[in-house]
This record gives sequence, structure tokens and C-alpha cells, in this order.
Amino acid sequence: MRDFIFPVRVYYEDTDVVGVVYHANYLKFMERARTEWLRALGYEQDILIHEQGMLLAVSSIAVEYKKAARFNDLLQVAVMGIKLGRVTLTFEQRITRPGDREEQEIITTGHVKVASLDAITFRPKPIPQQLRQDLESAS
Amino acid sequence: MRDFIFPVRVYYEDTDVVGVVYHANYLKFMERARTEWLRALGYEQDILIHEQGMLLAVSSIAVEYKKAARFNDLLQVAVMGIKLGRVTLTFEQRITRPGDREEQEIITTGHVKVASLDAITFRPKPIPQQLRQDLESAS
Amino acid sequence: MRDFIFPVRVYYEDTDVVGVVYHANYLKFMERARTEWLRALGYEQDILIHEQGMLLAVSSIAVEYKKAARFNDLLQVAVMGIKLGRVTLTFEQRITRPGDREEQEIITTGHVKVASLDAITFRPKPIPQQLRQDLESAS
Amino acid sequence: MRDFIFPVRVYYEDTDVVGVVYHANYLKFMERARTEWLRALGYEQDILIHEQGMLLAVSSIAVEYKKAARFNDLLQVAVMGIKLGRVTLTFEQRITRPGDREEQEIITTGHVKVASLDAITFRPKPIPQQLRQDLESAS
Repeated sequence: MRDFIFPVRVYYEDTDVVGVVYHANYLKFMERARTEWLRALGYEQDILIHEQGMLLAVSSIAVEYKKAARFNDLLQVAVMGIKLGRVTLTFEQRITRPGDREEQEIITTGHVKVASLDAITFRPKPIPQQLRQDLESAS
Repeated sequence: MRDFIFPVRVYYEDTDVVGVVYHANYLKFMERARTEWLRALGYEQDILIHEQGMLLAVSSIAVEYKKAARFNDLLQVAVMGIKLGRVTLTFEQRITRPGDREEQEIITTGHVKVASLDAITFRPKPIPQQLRQDLESAS
Repeated sequence: MRDFIFPVRVYYEDTDVVGVVYHANYLKFMERARTEWLRALGYEQDILIHEQGMLLAVSSIAVEYKKAARFNDLLQVAVMGIKLGRVTLTFEQRITRPGDREEQEIITTGHVKVASLDAITFRPKPIPQQLRQDLESAS
Repeated sequence: MRDFIFPVRVYYEDTDVVGVVYHANYLKFMERARTEWLRALGYEQDILIHEQGMLLAVSSIAVEYKKAARFNDLLQVAVMGIKLGRVTLTFEQRITRPGDREEQEIITTGHVKVASLDAITFRPKPIPQQLRQDLESAS
């Protein structure tokens, strides 16, 4: 798949006293990008919950913090690859900052596993067929 | 009523790049103290939702930021007074930091109006009789 | 001044168990819009801090919560008016959601006072002349 | 080492529309416990920054989400083991919820690597000798 890129601006709310983005907040940025990637495929998560009775929940995450993003940075949050299981999606993600000479500085990389759950019982629920097909064509 | 005091420690998550507590986060501290004040009266909000079908939602807030709290401060968050309406509770709150010579520095004051809502329809719902009595004895 | 409008999408991170945007998070949305309004005028706050030694800090806030915003809503956060003091700026802000028939539902209104502070001492610092002129032409 | 346990209450601010703790917020809980563990050893992080010129920054994190914590839960956040490198500390952490029959339900496990950085340059800085000794006796 081609990388999907979603821009995220760093506001005061995202930083901490050390002057950089608080480490947990990169997880929010990554989720915003996954949400926008799904939206670009035509899927709204509130509709998935209400019409298909399914929700997506993070089941594991591994993040490497390589450089610090700072207040006012305009980051690029990428969804770079996705692997489909029966009830899981695994995303490769990367957050970069445009550097001085066109190259990108890598801020953070993430490997995020998301499970498809029944929206009522929270038990694993196979990814619906149509969504699976659309995810496969996109990946 | 006697002031109800709930201690809140300032962690990295609460601060911003300026080195102080991010302004929206004091609202979280104030809500923690209201929650603990209700708990001290014997009311758990999850049980209020499930058994009485009511939830408490903030309907207006006015906050004065007087001094900045900093990373690692141990603050005292007070519920100092409460006024009861038919469907609303109005709290006076204050956040202080112990000073060098026993006096308290005032960090933030808040005037917070909370509405009793039906947990399903989100429409105003009179405060249940027993809760009202307990709030009146406490205030 | 003409209203300045900044769009904000509601993500999971912004919601709470009641199913709506957590009340403190609207303050983040309002600050994002103030930041973007300043940026549109040509002012980057990190540069204000480093080159002019000034920072903007919220000194009081009054917010009315009228309707609840929900997961996945695309809100419009407005900066609608600004009053200039010697060391303060007071913003009128409004958060709306596009309704079914073109009208906007008002979610939240805010009256936010921001102080110009010396970036080192945190003491009040008159708004620099050029910034003042640009704010006046914009308001 | 004996497990170090720090209690964390789940407030509205921690939950999301799905009704459970938002996944990024467990990282905050884990950091609160690491901070309190250091404090119990006699180390305040603001003093480490100002007197020793060192700060601790998360350099990688791996988290498994096993069960969902809910609004109003009183969780126990553990620091269970620590490995010392020259400039890094690696923590094993676990978040549990007291179950019905005295057993603990495991909510989340985390493997968190923290680097010692120079507080000005953000470059790796060996852990100071006295802190190293105290960490070694504690682990």
C-alpha cells in the first residue's frame, strides 16, 4: 500500500514540562491517523458501531521514541502497512517531521495491533466481509 | 459545610511546555475532588447511572487562574460550598499549594455548575430525593 | 472582525464514558483555534517566546456547555471577537456543529481571557507594539 | 525486588465513549507509578533535573491490553522489576483490578524503557553514581 499521511499540529495540550510531546500523546496521534485512514476507505467508526455492532480496540502497542517533537511542530503521521488477521488488524505507523533539506526526521515508530470486538459484549468478532475486502484492496 | 480537601499530585502528564499545569487540566483536578466528595457521602457515580438512571454533567464553569502550579507540586483541591437547585448543583472550588510558612497559595478558583441528567435521554432530571437530602445535610 | 473558524474532529481521545466530549477537552479545542487564528495573522507562539520573550497564558475562562458533542463529530471552533487590554486579550469563542438543515447547533460558548507574560519571570508584560497593531487591525 | 504498588482511581477524564479507559491513558498510570516508586526511594524528579541536570525520558514502550478497566475502578499499578543499563532503566509494570474473590484481574502489562538524558542537551547521560546504587539496592 502507499503510505497514508495525516498531518498533526503539536499544541500546548500535547507538550510537557520537558518541552516536548508527552510520550502517551503520540498514541493519540497514531489513532487519529488510523481513524482518518479508515475514513478515507469509506468507514466511519461510529457507523461501524451502530450498524455493524463492531468496534476496534487496541490490543497491543510497541512504540520506539527516537526524537522529540516540540510545541508547534507540524508532524506527519503515517499508516504504512497493515496486516489482516481473522479478528485483528496490525498497523505499522511512523511519525515524522519535515527537516531542513527535504528529508524527514523520524520521531516515533509504532506497531499497533487492533482487535475487532462485538460492541456489546466486547468479545472478539470476525471482521465483517465487506470491510475485510476493502482493507485487503487497500493493503 | 466544612471544606472537603482532596490531594492531587502534578505529574508530567499534567504539565505543558511552559513548565506549568496546562489550563484545561485544572478542570480534571476539580472533577476528581467532586467525585471524591460524592464518594465520601456514600455515592458512587457508576451506581447512580446504573441504578438511578442519572448522571451528572458539567453545564457551566468559571475559572480564575491566579498562580501556576508546577511539576511535582502536591496540590489540595477543595470543594468549599454547594448550592442545590431542582436539577443543578453549583460548587465553589479552590486549588491551593502549601506555602513555605503554613499559609496556602491560591492557584485556581472555580465556580462549577453541574446538571442532573437522565442517563439515557440526557434531559434534565430532578435530583433524586435521598441524594438531595444527603447533599442538603452535607452543605 | 469576521469570525475565524477552525475545524476540529472529535476522536476517541476526546470522549468519555458518557459518550460525549469530556468537558475539559473543549478548552483544548478553543486553544487550538486561538493558536490558528494567531498563526493566520502571522504569529507563531514558539517564535513569540524565543524572539520576543513573551508567552500567552490563560488567566480566566467562562464556558457554557449547551449541547454535547459526540465521537466523530466535525466541529467548528470559532474566534468571534477579541478585546485588547494593555497586557490582556479577551476572546469570545463558540463551538458549533453543522445541523441537518444548514443551521449550526451551538455546542459550547466561551469567554477566555489571556495574559501576555514575560517568558522567564511569568510577570505581566505589555503586548509588543507590532503585535498590538496587528491584533487591532484584525479585531 | 518486592512489587511496588500505586493505586489509581479511574475518573471520567480517563475513559472514552466505548466505556473503558482510553488506551493511551494507561501509559499515564504507569508513569505515575514509576514516579512514586522513585519518590519512595527518595528521588524527586524536579530535583534530579535542577540539581543533577538529568531527566528521565521514555525511549520505548510495549504494552499488552488484556482486559478493559472501567469508570470508577480502583486499579493497582505495579512496578515489578527493573533492569539497569549504563544510561537506561527498563521497568516491568502491571495494572490489575481487585477481583471478586481476592484474585487480581490483569488489565495491562507494560515493558517500559527509560533513558537518562542531560536536561539541557537531551543527550544520553550516565545514571549518577548515587542514584545507580540506590536503584541497585532497590532492584
